Amino acid sequence: MSARSEKEKNPASSQQAPRHSSRWIEERILELAEYSDPESAGHTRLAFSREDRLAREAVAGFMKDAGLKVRVDPAGNIIGRRDGARPEAPVIMAGSHIDTVREGGRFDGIAGVIAAIQAVKGLQSRHLTTQHPLEVVVFTSEEPNEFGVSTVGSRAMAGTLDTQLLATLRNKDGLSLGEAVDSVGGDARSIAQAARRNGDILAYLELHIEQGPVLDGMGIPIGVVTGIAGFARGQITVTGRADHAGTTPMNDRKDALAAASEIVLALERIARRKNLHGTVATIGVLQNSPNAANVVPGRVTMVTDIRSTQLKLIERAEHTFQEELRRISAKRAVDIAFSGLNRSLPVAMDGWVMGLIEESCRACGAPYHLMPSGAGHDASHLSGIARAGMVFVPSRMGRSHCPEEWTDFEHIALGAQILETTILKIDERAKEVHGNG
Amino acid sequence: MSARSEKEKNPASSQQAPRHSSRWIEERILELAEYSDPESAGHTRLAFSREDRLAREAVAGFMKDAGLKVRVDPAGNIIGRRDGARPEAPVIMAGSHIDTVREGGRFDGIAGVIAAIQAVKGLQSRHLTTQHPLEVVVFTSEEPNEFGVSTVGSRAMAGTLDTQLLATLRNKDGLSLGEAVDSVGGDARSIAQAARRNGDILAYLELHIEQGPVLDGMGIPIGVVTGIAGFARGQITVTGRADHAGTTPMNDRKDALAAASEIVLALERIARRKNLHGTVATIGVLQNSPNAANVVPGRVTMVTDIRSTQLKLIERAEHTFQEELRRISAKRAVDIAFSGLNRSLPVAMDGWVMGLIEESCRACGAPYHLMPSGAGHDASHLSGIARAGMVFVPSRMGRSHCPEEWTDFEHIALGAQILETTILKIDERAKEVHGNG
Repeated sequence: MSARSEKEKNPASSQQAPRHSSRWIEERILELAEYSDPESAGHTRLAFSREDRLAREAVAGFMKDAGLKVRVDPAGNIIGRRDGARPEAPVIMAGSHIDTVREGGRFDGIAGVIAAIQAVKGLQSRHLTTQHPLEVVVFTSEEPNEFGVSTVGSRAMAGTLDTQLLATLRNKDGLSLGEAVDSVGGDARSIAQAARRNGDILAYLELHIEQGPVLDGMGIPIGVVTGIAGFARGQITVTGRADHAGTTPMNDRKDALAAASEIVLALERIARRKNLHGTVATIGVLQNSPNAANVVPGRVTMVTDIRSTQLKLIERAEHTFQEELRRISAKRAVDIAFSGLNRSLPVAMDGWVMGLIEESCRACGAPYHLMPSGAGHDASHLSGIARAGMVFVPSRMGRSHCPEEWTDFEHIALGAQILETTILKIDERAKEVHGNG
Repeated sequence: MSARSEKEKNPASSQQAPRHSSRWIEERILELAEYSDPESAGHTRLAFSREDRLAREAVAGFMKDAGLKVRVDPAGNIIGRRDGARPEAPVIMAGSHIDTVREGGRFDGIAGVIAAIQAVKGLQSRHLTTQHPLEVVVFTSEEPNEFGVSTVGSRAMAGTLDTQLLATLRNKDGLSLGEAVDSVGGDARSIAQAARRNGDILAYLELHIEQGPVLDGMGIPIGVVTGIAGFARGQITVTGRADHAGTTPMNDRKDALAAASEIVLALERIARRKNLHGTVATIGVLQNSPNAANVVPGRVTMVTDIRSTQLKLIERAEHTFQEELRRISAKRAVDIAFSGLNRSLPVAMDGWVMGLIEESCRACGAPYHLMPSGAGHDASHLSGIARAGMVFVPSRMGRSHCPEEWTDFEHIALGAQILETTILKIDERAKEVHGNG
């Protein structure tokens, strides 16, 4: 029976998923949390690690239990498929990732994968068949991996992964990124075939923990994401002069760390300006050299990160920051070199999908808040080939990428209900945006 | 023939050494520079390393060539002795060290050892015998070693080495400090016998490179050291909160690196105050954590170093700094913990020895400058058991503890001439300070 056919019998129940117990979600998330590097604090399941491979097998099992046909694409993405009434129709996809940062938490990525499987289980338990095929996806290596790249799987699916990196990037053991992809069941030589053609995927939905304090602070269980912030990363090298800390008078110094300290505070001050509303800027990486108690620091390297959902605000912050670097360099007679690292443009979520998520929230009686995402997600890349939408659930105290990361299982269950409802709405109303439904 | 007997024949020449060629000094310093870890940049001869052991053998050879009787005391100090006319008289000692920091230079310590041997060679070539025995010393491990301590040999000779450290401190290979001392010919179990009794040593002279820019900047070849700065080291731990760099609004952050940056600049500002004239303060060590581009820093540790020749100025700087730490902690709502590490009191050089060094400079026609030492030296410890004096020679551009470290060989030769002249003056005028001469 298709969703449409049931709608005829019971129009209300087809588009609004019943509220499920959060128990299955809780058990699965805590089960995955066990796959963690025992030698690291918190939850550490780096992409391509032994723990990642074991957790991937476990998730493939969850998918099979939910009636999905499971395959691994050449990028190592795990894809669980449920056929629709019209096999030729474009796919409705939902998912996220299960790898973690080092010493991370139990929810980032995982919540979205488990919620997507739960949504399919919901359809299954209601014996609903959609017109469009459904796919639940676990993307390979969303977090920065030991090869220095992130979102490997979603970039491959969007056709934007620089495939040369597969051979050139190696980890500290000499393994190439391509070999790592192969080790999780991918096929790096054929990775181009992981790319989906425009039109293959009708819509992509991703539930994710907010990773920030906004929803928790407001007491609202659901965020409907309007867009994903772009970012600009840069590397700064401050070259002063290493001198003996006891014998060099204060006025004779070219202290690279003192100059770096002015830079850290300048970037913070810039991001707080009112005319950069919403922009955040961070120096998360700083290496001091030679880093000895009796030597005035001679060289400091740092990595800057500026983010906003508006490109013009990122550019305004960068421009002001460059002026500050010149001022500090001149004032302290130290050399300050800046080089751009990677950057990504802000991405807007699809308006039609956002509207259907909002309708689903209202149908489920869930209070929601429209908000941007400050973090990058697989959805950023999928938005290039599909109508993408994201659902946020609250992060307690805004904590993320740390062992204390926490999201209430009831909020994830509510998010899964909204995913399920939105999938049905997309399935039934696809003709609004897609000629042949 | 004694110095005194020669003086009767030729009063001028006995107390003023003739200017020697710098060639022997140059050859010996460049020879020692060859004993450097081939896997490190610059000149790396860490205490107790293979290179240190080879260089020690070479220096013992130089001493023997200069007619000295060589022994190694239980602390591993190499002592080359030249008897005086009165064997029971207290010793006049001169020396320094030959170990280097990692990626250091060719002169720090080495210049003082070679100049002391040159001074004895000068007496030898003039067939002058002193009343007092002379000893040239190479102190064990003056620089911070891989066990985390410095001035091991001079502390042992002064009787101030904490001998428990010999068993408790171990390097990364599990070797104890005591075993390391044994490996260079010492005898750690008998190290207490390396301590000289008060009165055994009449005076200790040390030539050293300035390691700062003052003499080079003034164009003056000799510094007569008035005192050695004391220092106070402390460790600071800033505990903020690690948050996602994309999702945490600027006003919701507890950025440990931003707080640390304020601390670096506050300490610099304090040391520059007029009422702390001469005080220097440095944060040379900073570790940022978790040090990831997309994470707001949650924890920063730093090591502070405050130095002055006046204890009251060190204490004034520390007091003001503690106030600043409280202010920054309150303003940013981060925890700032401060704990004292090691500290050493400022040491004044012996006035009588200083006066004789000044006389020697005038006798040799050498322009000189009275100045404090910002760096610690073996002389700091010897000053506890002997009348200590130091002669500085210029460091080009003030550079030290780096491969570019340079001192002109002519300046070292002039310093050696002043050492030789001062030794004779001390020998002849000892009765001024020492009842039985």
